[in-house]
This record gives sequence, structure tokens and C-alpha cells, in this order.
Amino acid sequence: MTYRLHCFSQSGNAFKVAMALDLMGQPWEPVFVDFFAGETRRAEWREAVNAMGEAPVLEDGPLMLSQSGVILDHLARKHGRFGGESEAERREVLRWILFDNHKFTSYLATFRFLKCFMPKEPDPAVMGWLKGRMDAALAIAEKELAGRDFIAGPALTIADLSMAGYLFYPAEEHGYDWAASHPAIARWLARIAAMPGWRGPYECLPGARIAPLR
Amino acid sequence: MTYRLHCFSQSGNAFKVAMALDLMGQPWEPVFVDFFAGETRRAEWREAVNAMGEAPVLEDGPLMLSQSGVILDHLARKHGRFGGESEAERREVLRWILFDNHKFTSYLATFRFLKCFMPKEPDPAVMGWLKGRMDAALAIAEKELAGRDFIAGPALTIADLSMAGYLFYPAEEHGYDWAASHPAIARWLARIAAMPGWRGPYECLPGARIAPLR
Repeated sequence: MTYRLHCFSQSGNAFKVAMALDLMGQPWEPVFVDFFAGETRRAEWREAVNAMGEAPVLEDGPLMLSQSGVILDHLARKHGRFGGESEAERREVLRWILFDNHKFTSYLATFRFLKCFMPKEPDPAVMGWLKGRMDAALAIAEKELAGRDFIAGPALTIADLSMAGYLFYPAEEHGYDWAASHPAIARWLARIAAMPGWRGPYECLPGARIAPLR
Repeated sequence: MTYRLHCFSQSGNAFKVAMALDLMGQPWEPVFVDFFAGETRRAEWREAVNAMGEAPVLEDGPLMLSQSGVILDHLARKHGRFGGESEAERREVLRWILFDNHKFTSYLATFRFLKCFMPKEPDPAVMGWLKGRMDAALAIAEKELAGRDFIAGPALTIADLSMAGYLFYPAEEHGYDWAASHPAIARWLARIAAMPGWRGPYECLPGARIAPLR
């Protein structure tokens, strides 16, 4: 069975799921949604696909799953890959997925969207505030990853894929040169990118690297 | 055994856990941390309690658990309460906990902190931007709750406790009069508050209702 992933190229949340499918060796096909034209926020799309008005959504036969953390958890359980080896590791996986959703996605992903993909120039006060939040969250991850190879245990888990999703985009999009500013994060990203089957975000979900609206 | 909850009164994330413990009828005691003096962000506290530099942390015997979503999941599994009745409900529970962490906590909780508890007056541009994000997330919850009694299934789950955590604080802190602006949310909060054992945030975690720093 081929999974269907409702997604768009610039979505790091969709890329988190695409990476997991690739590294699990599962067949999948993208179903592009025109996020920038407002498709995910229309009433019909919310009704048929996701009331939260967001991609990604994964179709697994009759199941329509949204929230990248739910999808990653579902795939890890179903295929017995990257979910952690013990109850303690499983808790660490969920802990870092929540950290990612709360800190990296809310601040770093939002910063990148405002910087690259929105029709209006963003407000410098908002960008400065988001940058402060990003830097604080990244400092925590940098410190943790200086002491171990993967974020939630001795081996790769879906928590790594979740946290790394937005960090794999080009430096010009989020503003960080990881090797220069966060060497432990840079080494950890290289470790993930060396996994068999890994592809970068714009290979995995091909599409414009140029902002569609400005 | 008595759980120990590292917390402070103004933390809606701590209140989410305190509510769960109360509604599960579990004995617990608060261990207050002086968040506003920077206690959770000090190296020793990060080392001993939580590398993420945040409350709440729940001590369950030798286990030290952080991230409210992890703690709620742990308690629901351990006590067999409020975790959902089927695999589909369990996924919905996680989906709304992630939504809460990504949207309500990142935007609404942050707005309230900047408005009430920070030493400096917040930047109006940042507050306006956060307000837009909050309103969008609340509109999604309002629409969902207009059609059912609880967010993730027919009965109360930890997803309700997670999402409601910050909404139970007084209107002057977050700026919303729920009955006036979001009637379905108001009815849902009343449903939760009617549960046996429920207490409000400042009863449950007594402390200053007045901003400590301005």
C-alpha cells in the first residue's frame, strides 16, 4: 500500500513525515496542497482533510492523520522503527517531539515563514522576538547534542526527525549556518543525512526554493 | 505514594498536571520553584531537574518527568484514566495535546506571560502578532467544541486538561471573556470545572494573582 502525504514543499512539518517514510523504506506519494493560496484554510478542505487547516495529513488507507507528531508516532508503532527501545526512551521521544512542536516549530518555523514566504515584509519587532526564542531553544538542543549522538536515546528516533525537520532547509531561509553557530547540531544533522534513504527537503518534496509570494 | 510536582502558581503547564492529579484522585504535593527569579534556568536546576529549564516536573518515585504532555500521558496510562478508549481516541488525544503545545501554549500562554509577568512592558507589535495567532487557534477549538462535549472524544481526556490549562486563568490575565467571545469554549470549561475534585489554578497552586515583577 502506498501512503498519500498531503503536503507542500516549504512545509518542514511535511518533511518530518516524508523523512520518516523514506528512512522506513515505505512507499508514499505526495498530494500537493496550495497552502500559499489558502487551500488548507478553506472550509471544504478543513471538512474533508483536516479541521486544523494545516498540512501535513497522511492517508493510511481509510485513516486520515494530521499533526506530524501523531503521524510519526503512528508510523513508528506500525513499522516498529525509530520509536525508542524502552518505556523510558518512548517517554524521551514524546518529550522532545513536544519540545519541537512548542519551541522549534512555533518559533523557528514561523520565523522562516515570515522571512521567506509571506506577502508582506515582516515586522522587525516580531522577528527580533522570535529570534530570541529560537536562539534559546537551539541553545538547549546544542547542549544536549554535544553529549550524545541522537536526541532521545542511543539511536535515531522520530524525535530526531521531528526536531531536524526545519533545520535541514537552506541557511538563507532560517538564517543559521549550523557548522559555525551550533557545531553539535551540525554534526547531528550530518548523522541523520547519512542514513540510508535520506533526501533533503527539496528533493523529497520538490518545489520552488524561491518564495512564491515575494 | 505522593507525587511531587515542581511548579509555580502562574504556570498553566503545571496547572494542567495538577488538574489531572486532582481529577484522578491522586495525592500530590507542590514543590515551588522561583521561576521569576530565574531558578529553572540556572545550570544546577537544569542539571538536577530539567535540562529544558522549565516547570512543571513531576517526581514519580525515581522518575523525573518533564513536558506536561509526557506527564499527562504517563499518568493516564498508569492510572487508566482520561487517556481515551480506543486507538483512534488515543491518536485524537495526542493530536490535540500537540495542537495545544504548538498553538495555545506558544501563543496564548506567552501572550499572558508578556502581558502580566514580565518586568518590561511588552512590545505592542509582538502582542498584536501573538493575539492574531491566538485568535486563529481559538477559532478552531471553538468550532470543534460547538459540535461535541469534549475535544478528543465523547468523554473527558487529558487533551481537554491540556488545552484548558491556560484558559482557566482570570480574564484580566489573557484578555478573553469566554462566555462573550467563545461560548462553546465557555460551556466546555464549565463541563471540566464541574468534574469531581476540580479546583481552579490559584486554589490548586496557591500564589500571587498579582504580577510579581510589575
